[in-house]
Amino acid sequence: MTETTPIAPSSRGPADHNVRSQIVEAATEHFSLYGYEKTTVSDLAKAIGFSKAYIYKFFDSKQAIGEVICANCLSAITNEVDEAIAGVSTASERLRRLFKTLVEASARLFFQDRKLYAIASAAAHERWQPVRAYEDHIRQVVMQIVLEGRKSGEFERKTPLDETANGIYLVMRPYIDPLLLQHNLDLAAEAHVQLSSLILRSLAP
Amino acid sequence: MTETTPIAPSSRGPADHNVRSQIVEAATEHFSLYGYEKTTVSDLAKAIGFSKAYIYKFFDSKQAIGEVICANCLSAITNEVDEAIAGVSTASERLRRLFKTLVEASARLFFQDRKLYAIASAAAHERWQPVRAYEDHIRQVVMQIVLEGRKSGEFERKTPLDETANGIYLVMRPYIDPLLLQHNLDLAAEAHVQLSSLILRSLAP
Repeated sequence: MTETTPIAPSSRGPADHNVRSQIVEAATEHFSLYGYEKTTVSDLAKAIGFSKAYIYKFFDSKQAIGEVICANCLSAITNEVDEAIAGVSTASERLRRLFKTLVEASARLFFQDRKLYAIASAAAHERWQPVRAYEDHIRQVVMQIVLEGRKSGEFERKTPLDETANGIYLVMRPYIDPLLLQHNLDLAAEAHVQLSSLILRSLAP
Repeated sequence: MTETTPIAPSSRGPADHNVRSQIVEAATEHFSLYGYEKTTVSDLAKAIGFSKAYIYKFFDSKQAIGEVICANCLSAITNEVDEAIAGVSTASERLRRLFKTLVEASARLFFQDRKLYAIASAAAHERWQPVRAYEDHIRQVVMQIVLEGRKSGEFERKTPLDETANGIYLVMRPYIDPLLLQHNLDLAAEAHVQLSSLILRSLAP
């Protein structure tokens, strides 16, 4: 499985790592209060009490900070998913839990705070690196569950694995991608149950 | 099956009907040139050469004109769908053609002209009456195909019909609703093929 790295790799030492974390934490707070779009690096520097030049020592741009916040948010979702499916005995139930957790965690993290949604939305629209890594990770989780279900005899084995996994990912996508989920929020709680059942019917041996 | 009425019912005679059509035709042209949002009924009146009061004799508001344009557009899609599935011998192939035609016609009608997209988008967002009628119609077409496939033995019969039809509609929805389709355009041509296959696997007896 691919792994999303919550903090972008840095060749600097642990002290620098702490400063980076401090900037990200303060930026998350600041963006959620005043919005990502409207905040400049100068605003951020002023709010944190650092100089703008000092922030630029650690991040090339506002987007670079946004990418770390985005990666942290997506990695909170994948952690929640991993927890939700760990120890669940059947592949069918793992698939249901995967979909349910993705919908619930995405709705909570992207929309509970409309101001952070601006980051999620820019990230999805411009396909930032953490978004691509996240999508790959979810595809891998789907593929893994399908493989396990094929092995245990729960799922059919005729369809090429790639095709099966990609089809399932496409069904889930409108409830994961924040740009699509914003138009699906009212529907999501009911839809993921019905769509999980449809997916499981498509996997029947 | 429910039917969308291209022109809103009117108790007036055929001459009035012609004036209504004339206003709608001119408005379609005008909106597609200058945008729905930015155009007022006054602009429209000036462009057509009618008085504002005369237009208000036939339509209560700009939205009332927009609704007729929207209904015409959606009824062009349902006509295209009806044509595409007529005479196709298997229910499976009818389902594939339904999805393909919906995606292609929606992409063409909603997005070939970004200025008319504003009407489609407002209609979908505010759930105008023609949109609700259109969605019901598509659901009915799906249900009809599922019923026929169950009768011919192509599809399984264990799942409640409503659940099957609604699940299929939910899979198609992100490629039909213009608010969702705008984020799916790049993907749509490939996605509808893969999703049709997944739907058909879910329907296997």
